[in-house]
Amino acid sequence: MKHSKVIDLLNSTKTLHEVTAKGWVRTFRNNQFIALNDGSTIHNIQCVVDFENTPDETLKRITTGAAICVTGTLAESRGAGQKVEIQVTKLEILGDSDAEKFPMQPKKHSLEFLRENAHLRVRTNAFGAIMRVRSTLAFAVHQYFQEKGFFYVNTPIITGSDAEGAGEMFQVTSLPIDGSAPRNEDGSINYKEDFFGKQTNLTVSGQLEGETFAMALGQIYTFGPTFRAENSNTSRHLAEFWMIEPEVAFNDLADNMDLAEDFIKYVIKYTVDKCGDDLKFLEARLLEEEKSKPQADRSEMTLLEKLSFVLDNNFKRVSYTEAIDILKDSTPNKKKKFQYIINEWGADLQSEHERFLVEKHFKCPVILFDYPAKIKAFYMRLNDNTEPGKETVRAMDILFPGIGEIVGGSQREERYDVLVEKMKALGIDEEELWWYLDTRRFGSAVHSGFGLGFERLVLFVTGMGNIRDVIPFPRTPQNAEF
Amino acid sequence: MKHSKVIDLLNSTKTLHEVTAKGWVRTFRNNQFIALNDGSTIHNIQCVVDFENTPDETLKRITTGAAICVTGTLAESRGAGQKVEIQVTKLEILGDSDAEKFPMQPKKHSLEFLRENAHLRVRTNAFGAIMRVRSTLAFAVHQYFQEKGFFYVNTPIITGSDAEGAGEMFQVTSLPIDGSAPRNEDGSINYKEDFFGKQTNLTVSGQLEGETFAMALGQIYTFGPTFRAENSNTSRHLAEFWMIEPEVAFNDLADNMDLAEDFIKYVIKYTVDKCGDDLKFLEARLLEEEKSKPQADRSEMTLLEKLSFVLDNNFKRVSYTEAIDILKDSTPNKKKKFQYIINEWGADLQSEHERFLVEKHFKCPVILFDYPAKIKAFYMRLNDNTEPGKETVRAMDILFPGIGEIVGGSQREERYDVLVEKMKALGIDEEELWWYLDTRRFGSAVHSGFGLGFERLVLFVTGMGNIRDVIPFPRTPQNAEF
Repeated sequence: MKHSKVIDLLNSTKTLHEVTAKGWVRTFRNNQFIALNDGSTIHNIQCVVDFENTPDETLKRITTGAAICVTGTLAESRGAGQKVEIQVTKLEILGDSDAEKFPMQPKKHSLEFLRENAHLRVRTNAFGAIMRVRSTLAFAVHQYFQEKGFFYVNTPIITGSDAEGAGEMFQVTSLPIDGSAPRNEDGSINYKEDFFGKQTNLTVSGQLEGETFAMALGQIYTFGPTFRAENSNTSRHLAEFWMIEPEVAFNDLADNMDLAEDFIKYVIKYTVDKCGDDLKFLEARLLEEEKSKPQADRSEMTLLEKLSFVLDNNFKRVSYTEAIDILKDSTPNKKKKFQYIINEWGADLQSEHERFLVEKHFKCPVILFDYPAKIKAFYMRLNDNTEPGKETVRAMDILFPGIGEIVGGSQREERYDVLVEKMKALGIDEEELWWYLDTRRFGSAVHSGFGLGFERLVLFVTGMGNIRDVIPFPRTPQNAEF
Repeated sequence: MKHSKVIDLLNSTKTLHEVTAKGWVRTFRNNQFIALNDGSTIHNIQCVVDFENTPDETLKRITTGAAICVTGTLAESRGAGQKVEIQVTKLEILGDSDAEKFPMQPKKHSLEFLRENAHLRVRTNAFGAIMRVRSTLAFAVHQYFQEKGFFYVNTPIITGSDAEGAGEMFQVTSLPIDGSAPRNEDGSINYKEDFFGKQTNLTVSGQLEGETFAMALGQIYTFGPTFRAENSNTSRHLAEFWMIEPEVAFNDLADNMDLAEDFIKYVIKYTVDKCGDDLKFLEARLLEEEKSKPQADRSEMTLLEKLSFVLDNNFKRVSYTEAIDILKDSTPNKKKKFQYIINEWGADLQSEHERFLVEKHFKCPVILFDYPAKIKAFYMRLNDNTEPGKETVRAMDILFPGIGEIVGGSQREERYDVLVEKMKALGIDEEELWWYLDTRRFGSAVHSGFGLGFERLVLFVTGMGNIRDVIPFPRTPQNAEF
């Protein structure tokens, strides 16, 4: 008999027919009640075993983690906590799980322990919920852009460019790294002998390639892995993470902010609508976790309240210049509570300043824009009519409570001459980016885009505290297990 | 005035109102008719310029590739070839394009020339169509699996495992490769000093990690980049390509075949429904291309006929053993026309044999299954009750006309002891795959999955002949430009 998914059985409006279910035992109480989970939902289905007519041998093998197949009658449940249950007539052990050895015991495990067992943690309620939410968010990303007529573009992962400057890169090679690689006459590595005939790295961003496609297809987005070889052992950084990068021809910075805000709200709403049960569980988990914190450090809102708040309120749009004024006048700045005191216009904002603006001052998501040119990337559009020494670019960062920067974007410099001059000043090789400059040589136009770190979004939506807990197998310094 | 997309203007049922459009000039005829394209569709909108009242200066700048903004009245067209046109009242040049220098001239370019200009080729009709089709196919992949309750899993790109054995791997490192990397006492590279504290590579498959998730969430799929450091300069191989890998708990090989066939048909049907105009263009392109071939080498079916044929017919399921019998008896085998003559059971099938089966013998997609164990991977389920020396595994490959292998999959070996024995025999390190073996230690069950090379699917659906033409920026030996 073909088996049914647990989610379908739990949602079934018909009862008293024979069903088969397959899944993993979460708990087995009183030699009678199996809580069976198959990953289709956070909820288990209760399977009632006729223990008097089941061999002891079999009962002993119904342990946490065991894979089983049950057949029986789907019936209204007499117990509390579930509408329906399976009154088991036939039970088969598909795969045993040694109760002593199975690491995912039915008790609370530390997140650190679970990270060390990333291949099994997804069998827990919390990680099952996180990974279902992640999957739903990812689909919402695609659906949003496709509905709006954007085209999905797979920009390259291995790149010969290192000009983008978004961060330290990993090298990719098929040469031996023990010193035996072929050399040029001057003693340097002969990269003509490497697989791609040149030195190559893992991409830090698909933006530059994405721009070339936006200047042909109009509206595009990427959604793929990106990499940073930075030794940042923080709860917000990964060496390998997924990024979403839309790019739109003819969009200016205001259009770009509109797009980013609309996009974020859409994917959160979609996920709140689809993943209610998982989010309710994660909300309760967070409340429980926060009980161990001092009152002052606890969230003012529950997880679902926080998500609703983002959906129901406009993101506050604040220029960098306004933000500096606010920060200069702020109590932590005056009382020198900030590690980096804000004295003057031009200062780069640190995480502490961003958090102050978002969490204390505005108490909502904030879009900061028009940053000083000298602290931002070469490809950003220089604003017209700024004072000398106070040049700004049409950049924008979206800051989220508890997360910090979730989006970084800009209107791009569309003027060939201005772009080339900027590249020269920064020592960026024009030869290497000949193809990028072609977009400004042939039919250039205003265009804008942004990058959103997908794991930061998942972090926000799930209410988790560490980015290593929202990606299946995190890659961080000294860790590439699995 | 907010501009409209060309696709919306062309589909507009209302006329005689003022509209604005932005895009790139494809052609400019008689100083009067601009064919304007914005990438939203393969079709251009005709913009009729009032040349008598437009300065010569401006008219000269309306060149192929220039970005322009036109405002005017959307009106029924008097010319043939389009229902509506814009009668331009205002025209602005957004970005010039030097007619002498713009590489994408309105004429036929060789595919090789276009590959060298991968950043601009998407501004041609053919590559615009290919990339829109690719995007639609990608979305169909997500929609299919999400509708069926599969969860999207991002398996790691950087991996510490090299046991999967699907092919040569690229090394990823943050160590210097010039011989100055830190050493152990025995002279070997001290990988503890590398970023991840161990030697790491780019993944060749997310299957093993995917299996761990399937054994928790039930039904999962991956869709991400995978890599092969193989020096294969063919029209069917890329060093970096995107792969889709579903994995389903409790599915056996027959379920796996059903899933693969249903999936492929769904995504092709979705794309045929959504991308009719692009596919019609690609069909005509293919017919044109084939005119230069001898009659015998031309396709019997047009592109859309070929796609319909796949949708309307069952894939032929043939065991390896049957296939060998067919091949042994075949004319090219008897006449020694095959490069590799099939003499006996156990031979690995070459591309020439696969093509014979698909294109000459069955003339439809073929699923070959139950391959000899010794020519397949360690994780495949050994069939019960086979003759000694004739052990087979529950593997399946889907072969497509013109493409060859498009899917490779199997039921996985779920029995711990059998799996460990197989690994030992093949010298695969159990220690390294401890986490993979855990899926068989704790609650193991029958499960199956497959991998589909996304670019091969795009190749089939677009009718293109070279895999480098269906990915934005191909990575192949000696080529990582852009």
